[in-house]
Amino acid sequence: MSKDHTGRSGEFEFIDAVRRAAGAPGRHAPVGIGDDAAVLRPPPGSDLVVTTDMLVSGRHFDPAWMSPRKIGRRAVLVNLSDLAAMGARPAGVFASLAFPPGTGRRFMNEIARGIETCSREHGARLLGGDTNLSAGELAICITAVGHARRGRIVRRSGARPGDRILVTGTLGDAAMGLVLLKGETPPPRPAARRFLVRRFLEPEARLKAGMALAESRTASAMIDISDGLLSDLGHILEESGADAEIRLTDVPTSAAFRSAPCPAGTSREDLALGYGDDYELLFTVPPSRMKKLDGMRLSCAITEIGEIVPRGDRRGKRVRVLDERGRLFRPRMTGFRHF
Amino acid sequence: MSKDHTGRSGEFEFIDAVRRAAGAPGRHAPVGIGDDAAVLRPPPGSDLVVTTDMLVSGRHFDPAWMSPRKIGRRAVLVNLSDLAAMGARPAGVFASLAFPPGTGRRFMNEIARGIETCSREHGARLLGGDTNLSAGELAICITAVGHARRGRIVRRSGARPGDRILVTGTLGDAAMGLVLLKGETPPPRPAARRFLVRRFLEPEARLKAGMALAESRTASAMIDISDGLLSDLGHILEESGADAEIRLTDVPTSAAFRSAPCPAGTSREDLALGYGDDYELLFTVPPSRMKKLDGMRLSCAITEIGEIVPRGDRRGKRVRVLDERGRLFRPRMTGFRHF
Repeated sequence: MSKDHTGRSGEFEFIDAVRRAAGAPGRHAPVGIGDDAAVLRPPPGSDLVVTTDMLVSGRHFDPAWMSPRKIGRRAVLVNLSDLAAMGARPAGVFASLAFPPGTGRRFMNEIARGIETCSREHGARLLGGDTNLSAGELAICITAVGHARRGRIVRRSGARPGDRILVTGTLGDAAMGLVLLKGETPPPRPAARRFLVRRFLEPEARLKAGMALAESRTASAMIDISDGLLSDLGHILEESGADAEIRLTDVPTSAAFRSAPCPAGTSREDLALGYGDDYELLFTVPPSRMKKLDGMRLSCAITEIGEIVPRGDRRGKRVRVLDERGRLFRPRMTGFRHF
Repeated sequence: MSKDHTGRSGEFEFIDAVRRAAGAPGRHAPVGIGDDAAVLRPPPGSDLVVTTDMLVSGRHFDPAWMSPRKIGRRAVLVNLSDLAAMGARPAGVFASLAFPPGTGRRFMNEIARGIETCSREHGARLLGGDTNLSAGELAICITAVGHARRGRIVRRSGARPGDRILVTGTLGDAAMGLVLLKGETPPPRPAARRFLVRRFLEPEARLKAGMALAESRTASAMIDISDGLLSDLGHILEESGADAEIRLTDVPTSAAFRSAPCPAGTSREDLALGYGDDYELLFTVPPSRMKKLDGMRLSCAITEIGEIVPRGDRRGKRVRVLDERGRLFRPRMTGFRHF
């Protein structure tokens, strides 16, 4: 760890720069960059929550669309979103990078700066990592570590029939932003375009909402929507052994999303239900705890969209989507399609 | 985390297979694969030690040299070696993989099996990760998490003048193994070749030695030799603010290493001092604690090779290597050259 394998000249310069930016280790991370490994000390009564995700250029993002700093930020945010979905508070971030040959030092530094500042803005420290040369693509592997009070972590497996299904924010924005970036549809008004593209490039990790829902024991199950509402709800149902009904008209979308022309061959519903990258939280709440949501400080809107129902014997049809007249709606896309 | 982005067909099959292999989570890792993140609960009085390292094909290894299972094992071992250098006990492993297009499922499964079995053999569980498609190379990013008793972690910064410098095992074997794999020198006897190549492909993480040296408070500073003795000793000296003298004749080498013809343009000393990949431990011990080493169960040989001396004012000459007559030896290689 904490090595720079990008070439002999200026070998450890890059890591030194990152180390200076990351600052001195703190109480919950007594050892950071500059040793064989970092040391984390969770507060008493807390567990450590660990997640890892790799982004590969040409697969998860196109470096032409975003500055290196934003690439670094996005890599951190998608990992912090996983911590949010457990109700954990970010503590540390580790970054392993593989740069294509000929990558300029400025580009590397900007990615590192994006990783470091985004971590710090969310209460986490950059605690380690390494840099490598790749054969041709940029790969960023982030590991995020957080704390959560013991017994307050929200799993995917806790949803029970009768529980309400809710989401934070709005769905489909990131999918529409991606469609716009790829030029697959004529752009809407500039402000709407900016909003939608930003929703793809700079997702918000719903950390406050995740922690509040977990700490107060309000949510019975939770996941972040990275692959699409139907797919990620499917994971909750799989782990919880239940089915679900979703009311299509209740699925929240933004005005910008509704104003954008839909690309050929897909529908607005497909984008909101079937595509991912929104990184909103999807969670379930038992009816008896619904009143806890009133006045809870979540820093974002929440919307009830359906209900957990007992597991039926249908194979592969765990989620039923009902339209405004209560008829079964058949979405065309039920998985994610990144990039 | 725990996603499979390698294609829509059989999307989650791979992760399911890994999840089954990894088994049920244990006491110190109550949540493993199958949620947004894993949960780790260190034993009371312990800290968590976290390290991450990425291996990229064509940079750190050549898939033609080793089976996919061994690729997976090696990626885990180099990370466990970092835990060993802190004196930590492995608890969990996270693996993010990027596969070139067209990679067969069997190849993927074999890498995953290598990662999983190697983790388990060393007391760690595979707790999460994700899989992706790359544009052309295989990238494996491993994060290893371990426990260490609070206050017993061995840093790089604890070496003081007068401390003895020791290493585990023998040095230069992995460098010679790599030279042999690349066909840069005529092979020695088959048994010696096998030994040397294996030392490169399957390094041992010196976990028992690391834990024993840390638990007993014997080592004052420790690092694993991944970049080469001189380079890694340099890190200890940098962090400790001291210099060092190494006795060339005391640097331990194996009979196989000494029997192999040296490639043109380099010397045996260069290989033993300047190349990495041995993953032996380099550590310092205050004179008063040297007797603690007698009878300590380390599962490997240890050799005293020099001494920490007060920091001089020479710039960039922190390590002096002395030959058998006490004259200054000038090694040609002082950094690593992976692959």
